[in-house]
Amino acid sequence: MVESWSFLDNVESNFRPLVVIELAKGTKEETIEWLTKRIVDKKANGGAQLLIKPLVTENGVENIYLVGASHLRLLLGAETVGLVKECSDNSMRTFTYSSRKTFKHFEDDNHDFLTMAECQYIIKHELENLRAKNEKMIPGYPQAKLYPGKSIVRRLLTSGILVQIFPLHDREELKKLSHSWYGRVKVGYQPLDDIRCYFGETIALYFGFLEYFTFALIPMAVIGIPYYVFAWEDYDKYVMFATFNLLWSTVILEVWKRICAILTYRWGTLLMKRQFEEPRPGFHGVLGINPVTGREEPVYSSIKRQLRIYLVSLPFVCLCLYFSLYVMMIYFDLEQWALDYHKENESNFSNLMLYVPSIIYAVVIEIMNRIYRYAAEFLTSWENHRLESSYQNHLILKVLVFNFLNCFASLFYIAFVLFDMKLLRQSLATLLITSQILNQFAESLFPYWLQKRYNRKMKKRMCSKKTDTDLSLAEQVNMEKEMGTYLGTFDDYLELFLQFGYVSLFSCVYPLAAVFAVLNNITEIYSDALKMCRVYKRPFAEPTANIGVWQLAFETMSVISVVTNCILIGMSPQVDALFPDSKMDLVLTVALVEHLLLAIKFIMAFVIPDKPRDIQTKLAKLEFESLEALKQQVRAFQMQLHFLLIRH
Amino acid sequence: MVESWSFLDNVESNFRPLVVIELAKGTKEETIEWLTKRIVDKKANGGAQLLIKPLVTENGVENIYLVGASHLRLLLGAETVGLVKECSDNSMRTFTYSSRKTFKHFEDDNHDFLTMAECQYIIKHELENLRAKNEKMIPGYPQAKLYPGKSIVRRLLTSGILVQIFPLHDREELKKLSHSWYGRVKVGYQPLDDIRCYFGETIALYFGFLEYFTFALIPMAVIGIPYYVFAWEDYDKYVMFATFNLLWSTVILEVWKRICAILTYRWGTLLMKRQFEEPRPGFHGVLGINPVTGREEPVYSSIKRQLRIYLVSLPFVCLCLYFSLYVMMIYFDLEQWALDYHKENESNFSNLMLYVPSIIYAVVIEIMNRIYRYAAEFLTSWENHRLESSYQNHLILKVLVFNFLNCFASLFYIAFVLFDMKLLRQSLATLLITSQILNQFAESLFPYWLQKRYNRKMKKRMCSKKTDTDLSLAEQVNMEKEMGTYLGTFDDYLELFLQFGYVSLFSCVYPLAAVFAVLNNITEIYSDALKMCRVYKRPFAEPTANIGVWQLAFETMSVISVVTNCILIGMSPQVDALFPDSKMDLVLTVALVEHLLLAIKFIMAFVIPDKPRDIQTKLAKLEFESLEALKQQVRAFQMQLHFLLIRH
Repeated sequence: MVESWSFLDNVESNFRPLVVIELAKGTKEETIEWLTKRIVDKKANGGAQLLIKPLVTENGVENIYLVGASHLRLLLGAETVGLVKECSDNSMRTFTYSSRKTFKHFEDDNHDFLTMAECQYIIKHELENLRAKNEKMIPGYPQAKLYPGKSIVRRLLTSGILVQIFPLHDREELKKLSHSWYGRVKVGYQPLDDIRCYFGETIALYFGFLEYFTFALIPMAVIGIPYYVFAWEDYDKYVMFATFNLLWSTVILEVWKRICAILTYRWGTLLMKRQFEEPRPGFHGVLGINPVTGREEPVYSSIKRQLRIYLVSLPFVCLCLYFSLYVMMIYFDLEQWALDYHKENESNFSNLMLYVPSIIYAVVIEIMNRIYRYAAEFLTSWENHRLESSYQNHLILKVLVFNFLNCFASLFYIAFVLFDMKLLRQSLATLLITSQILNQFAESLFPYWLQKRYNRKMKKRMCSKKTDTDLSLAEQVNMEKEMGTYLGTFDDYLELFLQFGYVSLFSCVYPLAAVFAVLNNITEIYSDALKMCRVYKRPFAEPTANIGVWQLAFETMSVISVVTNCILIGMSPQVDALFPDSKMDLVLTVALVEHLLLAIKFIMAFVIPDKPRDIQTKLAKLEFESLEALKQQVRAFQMQLHFLLIRH
Repeated sequence: MVESWSFLDNVESNFRPLVVIELAKGTKEETIEWLTKRIVDKKANGGAQLLIKPLVTENGVENIYLVGASHLRLLLGAETVGLVKECSDNSMRTFTYSSRKTFKHFEDDNHDFLTMAECQYIIKHELENLRAKNEKMIPGYPQAKLYPGKSIVRRLLTSGILVQIFPLHDREELKKLSHSWYGRVKVGYQPLDDIRCYFGETIALYFGFLEYFTFALIPMAVIGIPYYVFAWEDYDKYVMFATFNLLWSTVILEVWKRICAILTYRWGTLLMKRQFEEPRPGFHGVLGINPVTGREEPVYSSIKRQLRIYLVSLPFVCLCLYFSLYVMMIYFDLEQWALDYHKENESNFSNLMLYVPSIIYAVVIEIMNRIYRYAAEFLTSWENHRLESSYQNHLILKVLVFNFLNCFASLFYIAFVLFDMKLLRQSLATLLITSQILNQFAESLFPYWLQKRYNRKMKKRMCSKKTDTDLSLAEQVNMEKEMGTYLGTFDDYLELFLQFGYVSLFSCVYPLAAVFAVLNNITEIYSDALKMCRVYKRPFAEPTANIGVWQLAFETMSVISVVTNCILIGMSPQVDALFPDSKMDLVLTVALVEHLLLAIKFIMAFVIPDKPRDIQTKLAKLEFESLEALKQQVRAFQMQLHFLLIRH
């Protein structure tokens, strides 16, 4: 490692590269000069006051730059982004430089106070908040317009001058983390705090949710197994099973909120103030005045956006839904054909053939989901939402509606139109298992294999046989910049959401679903961990206080599952036999039970507090302290004023 | 007026009495001396820095004190309570004394900048925040214990030394207000802004809601009339009517949130920061350390409270519910008896007798509701809740559940057990109309008559024939202190809530209900206005941003009404006739429609934004400004720091 560092050492001894900036090949000299000057420049002059060094490899300078910052700069940045850290008295407080001595593990020469992920997040924040002053365009690129206050990095990204910007892995840390995470076969929790320190809160929270959800499914799985082992068709007990499931699913979603509060309180993000949201990078429009900030920035009429949403996106989504239903009908034709074939030639092969349509359909569903995902992304970005959060909400809504229908329509059709419980169970099993296998493969193993092959090629080219931790900085950067980019937790949550649907919507028909879900999730934890550590570039940490819209999505699913399960139980022959005289009584009873269950769900959701009592007390304490501090300020000021007025 | 003022004029020329404090007869001299000293004392010495004068009547000093404050003191108090006022640029901002010049209508000698209600609210806040320093007890009353930080006024109230504390009416203003509010017969809106200036936001918001709700009921009433005029039994149209009602009730509740946001933004309370909540006056316990504030104060174990709630209150409420159902069964026996009597002797008298059981039952319901109210108040205060808000929530929950069952159980029984639509309509009409008449009488006219009689007596005693505005201050205070105390908007909202139930739960059976509700509400506005202006003492203004838990209560009622209306329509013979072959299809269709309606309701509640766009923009602007200001502060501080560090 010494050879590539030596260059840097000349300039500053403690430069630690944190973030990599890759500029396009052939970027003009004047642009590079201007950019580096702006990055290094003092805050007072509108710069970011960071450190930047070109990366020197054997082939000379390659338009790759390493960004770092002095220890002091990082501490001041931590105050700017509003990091919350633990104090010596175990309370969580917003970090300020002036009160730095009161924080746990803080010493002026202790460079471990901020985790590397936090440092990288601070640098990203500072780079993104590097704003144009009087520049009308990026020097050297007249087509890349700027206006005062526009984020320079975002404009560089959208005009293709800046290829990418990503945080560096810490090979030592990563090795330690991956060893404790998935390196050894063990029973136990994931090292969530370490994951959070390395990858940030959003990703740690996803893994926390995945782990929690897997544990929460275990009771369902355990109760489900005897149904499989002993008697398939004992509906009396299915009623109990389904009722347990419904109440259980409400409880686990409510309890998750509490666990989430505990985690994010410990990580400080529960207390972090929301930052003011800037327009997303892709947003465009004519320059106008933003009514909120009073600044000049692109403005896009909300009516135009509404028109795009209701006249283009909505019809398109409906068309896709129609197409998905059309494919479903083809599947049923295939199913019928397979059944006929089986009846004609009863053989082992024909028996196997019975499963083929379901498997094909499962594959087609996965493919359609993935294609639709691109279409949804394109449409949502064409809708030109100003804020990233609004973009995300519209995207998630589009994707959720389609995926829900695409995955579950055939099951609903079998259950409530064909009334074929045997086929329902068979379809459910095939869909669930096939989609899990496909997902595991597509998400992790395939990219891992690709990456492995690429790494081998790279190393061969470098003619070295070093292990990962021995790589020189230049080699590491070159390897990491070619790695895939992790696109966020969306797909991972979506997969869990659909799994939750398979488990809960028809739980009384196929109790074994929970078992498969648990098995899948255990391997999912390992493959996702592998994916994060080995396949993708390190992602920037994103502070977050909860799983956001997914909480709502899971809750909605659990409400829908109350309805489907009640209907399924009502349709079972055993329950039917309880009401020999009147079908009416049966239906009315089922409807009554359903309403009662829904009422219990809502009351439970209302009664169970979202935050545990000790977290509530801690939050109240902080609020009280800040109110008191404000009151003290006001009082001190008023007294001064009063004395002043009296003296006159 | 001059004679009674002359005394005050000697002391300070601009003393304006705002709040009256009435001490118990025979309060010890030392206590009075100590209290007045604490009230007058400087803020720096822990006093309230207000002005206080004894009221001198013809009978000498009577332990009644008038409290006022200097103009400057009120402005500083406005900052302490966090009042939000309009700036010169039409934006709403938190008032601070240093930025006073930027506010609309502010001039240093303009004493109208704060409304009288605001001044009184400030004085109340300052008096309640007058806290014990080192006093162990109230001087002269060793049994009235104090501890550092305990609110003195609250201890004086609970130990009976302070009889009452209330704000003075402004006879001139009141006359103007009552003239524009209910004095002349006119079609138009209420002067909500004037009401707010005089009575504060909570009361103005109630009248705003009452008015809005009345307007919102008019479409229902208008559509309901033809059903009465033309054909009673045309169920096809009833389906349309009920569907309209259900969607309409969702829309009006959502739109109310927006209107509420507009009103409270204009009044400044939407932006007002929540103050830290102190223990409620009745709260008691052993002295301990509050984990939130770290202060010494009474502490009461939460487990004890839970035990009281679940082992005493809950069984008691259940017992009351059982009793209410028992009374209902007696009513049905009476009803049967009246029917039999009518069959035996068909006459006009027997026809009239048919209505007697319902009327008696309606009166009994009202009486039971009122008795239960006292029991619920007693129980909830015995549960010893620490916060007023928690007390209110438990009280409202208890009262709502009982009143709901008490008022509607018989209707549910008639509709879904007896299936007697004719009786349902008759009962509904009788209950609704009787309860409205009783309420109007009990709430307003009876106290008004009492008050009128008392006033006449008072005036006779004073041997004067002056009109209200001519009364001397002493006369005014003496008259007002005998007036009833307005106990808050609880009963008024409850009445509206029950009315909403009568209108919406069985709307498809009795479309005329909305007409009666509208008529009742129009007179209700007048009688409530009369009550506020003439019957009760002026209440202290309470800033509020919304109608709180009532929004949730109304929304729950509208969800329940979807269920009941769907069942009622499904039970109608006309709808029955649409499914001649299978009762099953009918029930399934009804269930499907019900679920669809519920889904539409929830989607509508989700899609309609709670705040109008312009309010959203204004709020975002304020948030942005405060974030910017904070950032500027941090930046300025960091720069100073940086220069300092560099110089070292």
